[in-house]
Amino acid sequence: MRTRLAGIVVLGSNGEAPLLDDAESDAVIETVRVNVPRDRTLIGGVGRESTAATIAAATRAARIGVDIVLVRTPSFYKNVMTSDAFVRYYTAVADASPVPVLLYNVSMFTGVNLMPDAVERLAAHANIMGLKESNADLVQLAETIARTPDGFVVLGGSAPTFYHALCAGADGGVLAISSVGPDICVDMVDLVRAQRHAEALELQRRITPLGRLLGAMTGVAGLKYALDQIGYAGGPTRPPLGTVPPDAQKQIREQLAALGTLAAK
Amino acid sequence: MRTRLAGIVVLGSNGEAPLLDDAESDAVIETVRVNVPRDRTLIGGVGRESTAATIAAATRAARIGVDIVLVRTPSFYKNVMTSDAFVRYYTAVADASPVPVLLYNVSMFTGVNLMPDAVERLAAHANIMGLKESNADLVQLAETIARTPDGFVVLGGSAPTFYHALCAGADGGVLAISSVGPDICVDMVDLVRAQRHAEALELQRRITPLGRLLGAMTGVAGLKYALDQIGYAGGPTRPPLGTVPPDAQKQIREQLAALGTLAAK
Amino acid sequence: MRTRLAGIVVLGSNGEAPLLDDAESDAVIETVRVNVPRDRTLIGGVGRESTAATIAAATRAARIGVDIVLVRTPSFYKNVMTSDAFVRYYTAVADASPVPVLLYNVSMFTGVNLMPDAVERLAAHANIMGLKESNADLVQLAETIARTPDGFVVLGGSAPTFYHALCAGADGGVLAISSVGPDICVDMVDLVRAQRHAEALELQRRITPLGRLLGAMTGVAGLKYALDQIGYAGGPTRPPLGTVPPDAQKQIREQLAALGTLAAK
Amino acid sequence: MRTRLAGIVVLGSNGEAPLLDDAESDAVIETVRVNVPRDRTLIGGVGRESTAATIAAATRAARIGVDIVLVRTPSFYKNVMTSDAFVRYYTAVADASPVPVLLYNVSMFTGVNLMPDAVERLAAHANIMGLKESNADLVQLAETIARTPDGFVVLGGSAPTFYHALCAGADGGVLAISSVGPDICVDMVDLVRAQRHAEALELQRRITPLGRLLGAMTGVAGLKYALDQIGYAGGPTRPPLGTVPPDAQKQIREQLAALGTLAAK
Repeated sequence: MRTRLAGIVVLGSNGEAPLLDDAESDAVIETVRVNVPRDRTLIGGVGRESTAATIAAATRAARIGVDIVLVRTPSFYKNVMTSDAFVRYYTAVADASPVPVLLYNVSMFTGVNLMPDAVERLAAHANIMGLKESNADLVQLAETIARTPDGFVVLGGSAPTFYHALCAGADGGVLAISSVGPDICVDMVDLVRAQRHAEALELQRRITPLGRLLGAMTGVAGLKYALDQIGYAGGPTRPPLGTVPPDAQKQIREQLAALGTLAAK
Repeated sequence: MRTRLAGIVVLGSNGEAPLLDDAESDAVIETVRVNVPRDRTLIGGVGRESTAATIAAATRAARIGVDIVLVRTPSFYKNVMTSDAFVRYYTAVADASPVPVLLYNVSMFTGVNLMPDAVERLAAHANIMGLKESNADLVQLAETIARTPDGFVVLGGSAPTFYHALCAGADGGVLAISSVGPDICVDMVDLVRAQRHAEALELQRRITPLGRLLGAMTGVAGLKYALDQIGYAGGPTRPPLGTVPPDAQKQIREQLAALGTLAAK
Repeated sequence: MRTRLAGIVVLGSNGEAPLLDDAESDAVIETVRVNVPRDRTLIGGVGRESTAATIAAATRAARIGVDIVLVRTPSFYKNVMTSDAFVRYYTAVADASPVPVLLYNVSMFTGVNLMPDAVERLAAHANIMGLKESNADLVQLAETIARTPDGFVVLGGSAPTFYHALCAGADGGVLAISSVGPDICVDMVDLVRAQRHAEALELQRRITPLGRLLGAMTGVAGLKYALDQIGYAGGPTRPPLGTVPPDAQKQIREQLAALGTLAAK
Repeated sequence: MRTRLAGIVVLGSNGEAPLLDDAESDAVIETVRVNVPRDRTLIGGVGRESTAATIAAATRAARIGVDIVLVRTPSFYKNVMTSDAFVRYYTAVADASPVPVLLYNVSMFTGVNLMPDAVERLAAHANIMGLKESNADLVQLAETIARTPDGFVVLGGSAPTFYHALCAGADGGVLAISSVGPDICVDMVDLVRAQRHAEALELQRRITPLGRLLGAMTGVAGLKYALDQIGYAGGPTRPPLGTVPPDAQKQIREQLAALGTLAAK
């Protein structure tokens, strides 16, 4: 199936990246690289806790063929993860990475927050091309966009605020929901670009329930379940991740039906 | 001076309502009532911790002449302030109030949150006309709007997210910043209604710094200081509120100058 | 009934103080003053949001006959309630109060926190005699005690950590649970003073379930219900406070029975 | 140097475990195993995000010779890390581990919390011998202890609340500060066991400042710096961890001097 998506992300949060070892991670990128057409951007997640491990992963991913590396904030030592620490970390990674770096802020999983002052400083690095901002804080997102150059790409990562992120000036999105409803997500971008805000807001209202279901409520398990429903092979999660409760399964099926994606493939 | 504002709120959070006694509160409403033209809506804050005290305050305010009462969530006993408790509280107040009730959610001051499910239930009450939502959570705001009827008025109360709230479907706003830049706020509403989003976003970027300064950073003291700068008599705060630090004073003057409101009166 | 309690607090959080007006508050103090023997300390809650209102309430309470005034932190304007603001507030109140001031920190209700540095500065005031610390943060409590003189009285206000507060050096407690189990609370102080820690810890384990039930879980309504069960007249709460859910009622009765206080009176 | 410590932990949070790869981790354990006398317990951290990776690490560590494996809660997918998920995870790990499992709860780093109900269920597993509880919540600690059998070992992991944890019934501690002041930590346990609480509390007051410095304030970098000061080779941190600011260095030296450990080796 061909979609209108501009590219694909592998080894993001929903790709269970923290549950795979290095060899598995490389194999995932290889498989995807073979199957994604060259006219679509391939972004690979390579964030690790240590700077050296991240650089090693970025180097391997670039060699296999990703176009861009997605680098999640390190987060274990939360008490010392200041803006200065993030700037040091990302600068070292971007200095060493053979391909451009996409910053990645996702506080619901990391418990740390990449603030606009850090992003502003990092946006000046020639090898840092943008930010995937998965937080729903519109004030922060708007400030980040205002403090970075026009060419710096900001991608929304929260489905329930995707329309709002685009209103705030985001350039696009990287969303779990685009795996099950790719055209809907592209439509949203097109509608906002065409200044058709009433339709965009209406579309947002339609996708918010599924966005929440596949986000905070069920996460990876929910997305895999949804993929199974529409003809892809989502498959089981890797422990300690579990399964989707029956109630949530029912809600996911209902939302997929409401969005007309149950037979999408 | 005449402005294009649709109305005025007295005894809101920035009106130092929690620091005034009942006689002072009544005197404030009387003074404003005399001076606000009848073609503008006068909204008076009457929220108290006890249901009975709120009803008494609403009754007095209505007698003096407010068109609508603004009722902040009770908040001291946070552990039992469930949606059910809020529904009971607001229903009792709305049953008794001689004038329509405007719900008021402002977690930065109350530490409690009036959730969409409670607002949905309350919106069915004939004497509850809307909600002033001062939180910056766009997901919650969008859900609240989606779950309430078209005629239910939702007003944004957070300056840094005012444009975003309008995008999400808010009908207008009640903002501290409109005291120092009334036309800017009306312009924002007009721009969004006219689908001129690029200009609206640009305007939002211009007001966000002052919105943040007069919001979380300096609060009542900052707003009073700003009013002093543009020719109104903001005056001192009532203790325990204090004064604006010199640094913040300078920033406020700079932002007022940038907005062209320093000689607004 | 006579108990071994050293005194009594009226118009604390569990006394529904925020739900009473000034006349009612005065009447409560008068009633209690008449009935509490002069050899027991009578402490009256007088905290208000404004400094002036607090001073007025303290003056009236002293005239009626309280020995000490309990002054909760003001809390509405959370964003500016710094240690400096608290020091200014309490200094003004203590300067004006005819009777000694007992500071009162209870973040679960106020959403603000009176930090050790502020308490240290305030402990130097001749008319500030101590602190009722109702938070369960033992690190903060220990620091506060370490930074204040020996004569400064620190009273624990959290039943589930009462033993731990005494271990940390607290001088005693002001606890909701002492209304239904006064002797148990006095026993705890005596056991710790006698260095009988194993018994004290065992006693703590016995009271923790009721402490939690009457604390965060049911609050004022739970305490009133418990008083009704043991022969006092707790009576109904004042709205917006509600009633105790049947499940919690059952748990309260079970815990009262386990503590042997069901027929205490 | 010989100390009175009962054992040693390697690859805990302060051992930079999340920054090492598997080969480095194994090498650390091997080095320590050779140098730690057999009469002291050797505990090795093996927690990973995936259940399978944790089991593999536990198996390797046991083969190298650790007596007990310390298993931190998985934490990336915070939204689904319920008590049920933790029970499934730890049960699978304990079923497979060749040596006993010590649970490890450290919310300041993980952002998740292993609640008493989960610990209670896990304590019934024959291969789960205890819990290292590094949170400072004494209410939770006391509840965990009350809900687990006497033979289940609970070790405090927060220096500023170590005395309080022992009062609550903790059996001992695993503390960063014991690397620089081992005898002080053993003294604390001895004092509490001997019911010499006044001395224990006084000792707690002496160690709290260093405990806070080496905890939330400077973390790994602070501990390494402190080790350098007393004659060990703490060495540099691994990026993205950085260095200790000069101010904090000064404070650490002052506290080490106050504790008499500057020339400890």
